[in-house]
Amino acid sequence: MSKSIDLKRIVETLQSVLPKDQEYIALHEPRFSGNEWAYVKECLDTGWVSSVGKYVNRFEEMLQEYTGVRYAVAVVNGTAALHMCLQLAGVEAGDEVVVPSLTFIATANAIHYCGATPHFVDIETRTLGLDPYKLGDYLEEITEIRDSTCFNKITGKRLKAVVPMHTFGHPVDLDPLMEVCNRFKLELIEDAAESLGSFYNGRHTGHWGKLSALSFNGNKVVTTGGGGAILTNDSSLAKLAKHITTTAKVPHRWAFNHDRVGYNYRLPNLNAALGCAQLEQLPDFVEKKRNLADQYNKAFSEMEGVSFFTETEFAKSNYWLNVLLLDEQYADRRDDLLELTNEMGIMTRPFWTVLHKLPIHARCPKMDLTVAENLESRAINIPSSVVLGVINNEA
Amino acid sequence: MSKSIDLKRIVETLQSVLPKDQEYIALHEPRFSGNEWAYVKECLDTGWVSSVGKYVNRFEEMLQEYTGVRYAVAVVNGTAALHMCLQLAGVEAGDEVVVPSLTFIATANAIHYCGATPHFVDIETRTLGLDPYKLGDYLEEITEIRDSTCFNKITGKRLKAVVPMHTFGHPVDLDPLMEVCNRFKLELIEDAAESLGSFYNGRHTGHWGKLSALSFNGNKVVTTGGGGAILTNDSSLAKLAKHITTTAKVPHRWAFNHDRVGYNYRLPNLNAALGCAQLEQLPDFVEKKRNLADQYNKAFSEMEGVSFFTETEFAKSNYWLNVLLLDEQYADRRDDLLELTNEMGIMTRPFWTVLHKLPIHARCPKMDLTVAENLESRAINIPSSVVLGVINNEA
Repeated sequence: MSKSIDLKRIVETLQSVLPKDQEYIALHEPRFSGNEWAYVKECLDTGWVSSVGKYVNRFEEMLQEYTGVRYAVAVVNGTAALHMCLQLAGVEAGDEVVVPSLTFIATANAIHYCGATPHFVDIETRTLGLDPYKLGDYLEEITEIRDSTCFNKITGKRLKAVVPMHTFGHPVDLDPLMEVCNRFKLELIEDAAESLGSFYNGRHTGHWGKLSALSFNGNKVVTTGGGGAILTNDSSLAKLAKHITTTAKVPHRWAFNHDRVGYNYRLPNLNAALGCAQLEQLPDFVEKKRNLADQYNKAFSEMEGVSFFTETEFAKSNYWLNVLLLDEQYADRRDDLLELTNEMGIMTRPFWTVLHKLPIHARCPKMDLTVAENLESRAINIPSSVVLGVINNEA
Repeated sequence: MSKSIDLKRIVETLQSVLPKDQEYIALHEPRFSGNEWAYVKECLDTGWVSSVGKYVNRFEEMLQEYTGVRYAVAVVNGTAALHMCLQLAGVEAGDEVVVPSLTFIATANAIHYCGATPHFVDIETRTLGLDPYKLGDYLEEITEIRDSTCFNKITGKRLKAVVPMHTFGHPVDLDPLMEVCNRFKLELIEDAAESLGSFYNGRHTGHWGKLSALSFNGNKVVTTGGGGAILTNDSSLAKLAKHITTTAKVPHRWAFNHDRVGYNYRLPNLNAALGCAQLEQLPDFVEKKRNLADQYNKAFSEMEGVSFFTETEFAKSNYWLNVLLLDEQYADRRDDLLELTNEMGIMTRPFWTVLHKLPIHARCPKMDLTVAENLESRAINIPSSVVLGVINNEA
């Protein structure tokens, strides 16, 4: 029988990395240390605050340059980006879309918006993200290909796409996943909402998907208040993305013609201005965040019963949200640790509830989800703001 | 035979009202003359830029106070507000929703998002909005009530709601429309995207609908960059509106449970900060806009072949976008007038294409739409920015 875990020592170890003089330490707060005010003020001074303006274009160009993906289309948030990615990839009402059970609710919601059904699959311990090998074996068993289209033999529905999510910034194993998608005629859409600044085998996440989604919510590595972007290397999809996110209005000097059901999803210039200032600092932010992760890793390296989650060999992660994993036998102490830390003003939280366990998903198809359930039961996120990496760097 | 219309004189009359020293006069540009800087900067200084923050709450309170509607829920834009209003009013896939054919595409798009079908009805010349009397006669003819539910006898579908739109700020005739809705068991949802600052019989628009939608797009009377709000006097609907626009997350200190398919539709605090500063100036903005309308009205009062559109007896309009109507026999000169003015740097535009004429709506049910088609054929919007009212006021 192993000895019981020492929660007090875990807290002390957290405190050794965190600043001493703060009453409350957030999970992830934004940092505005660059040209934010200058750019936002310019929007106000010129009156260009809405969905057209130079910062929207510049923001998209900066995203393209940083990620290396050829086209970026800025939208109101990550959920909108995912919704558009799915629609542009051809997901239709009645389809099934493969998605990890451990992800934020937005990934599943976007599938529901299309009238499609999430099909929940398992994750792997190395990445906290979709397990491509387990997925391949599963699809082999439950699907059949007819006319280059993948069907679920059990439900009879078309399987159209796979949406991996790079959990807390850690890239999933994209090469074998790509192989599985090709083998089963499935579109790959990367939910890269958490992985701006994260690389797989030296290339930025978002490159593998036919389309990929970014998020710039207030808790992300960089923020636009609320915001997101669609990434794609396909010029016609990029053009269509811009079109349907701006009410599908056919360009004309004054006439109003709309050639399909469109959306009002474009990012306002005011928010894009904030985003430009933030992106200028992104490489520095990622460095600071990786520095913080390094400090955590060292601090917890010798501790029994708990481990700090680190990137695997193919990944260079942005360490968006840092993860502490309790050993399996201590899973029942997770909530005690959450209580203790939050009461002390150190914000922590569990992973999301695995989505197949939410009553709204009771009827959705799913595979064996042992790993997702296991990891969810014993993991917490710990403070991860850029500023914490700054302080430690300068200390 | 009437003599031909004098486009040159129309332009000169426009110029008599507009500033002399500007190369380009926009249709509607925002005005940031209050606390915009101070509030937006405070967001950046405190780090509260995203979907939680004091300005979101304050913005909602200010909307409640100004409109007199008990609850306001701020969202990312007017389209999102409409989408939520329809869903909260119980519009479901397969329903038909009554909507004027002359409206911005967003009104119809929101209906499509619900899987419902727009059913296009005619407008009246007095208000440019939905004609309640013509609607009553039409519904008498094509519907039947079974179990307190209205059905279209021709399509067999349920008619669930009516969505009038207060065109360019001019309130539709709400009392008789309310009577029609009651008689035919239809929910009333006001598309008040254009009518913030507009009153019907002394009460602000948005009071009659079970739910109503506002917009704060860059071209509106007040702007948040992009933004909108749901208005309702029903406390349980207001609570539900907040819930489903914030991913339907069940409140908990840290756990992630979502009890229905939700949306990421909340307005960021950064945008709400701008909105608070704008709302402080709203009464003044409306006064300036009414002043501008008054100047246009006087300038065009004696002119033959064209008339300036004014509010009817029950309305106090914000005159969001001013309207010039060519007499019927000159409808064929509308595009010449658009060409001429836009080439001279005076931005004008036609009404929206009546929605039943867009190919995407070819199969949607519709009534006789003579008035909508007639008005669309001979009307244009002319410059309407608040600043134009300021200049004339001070001249």
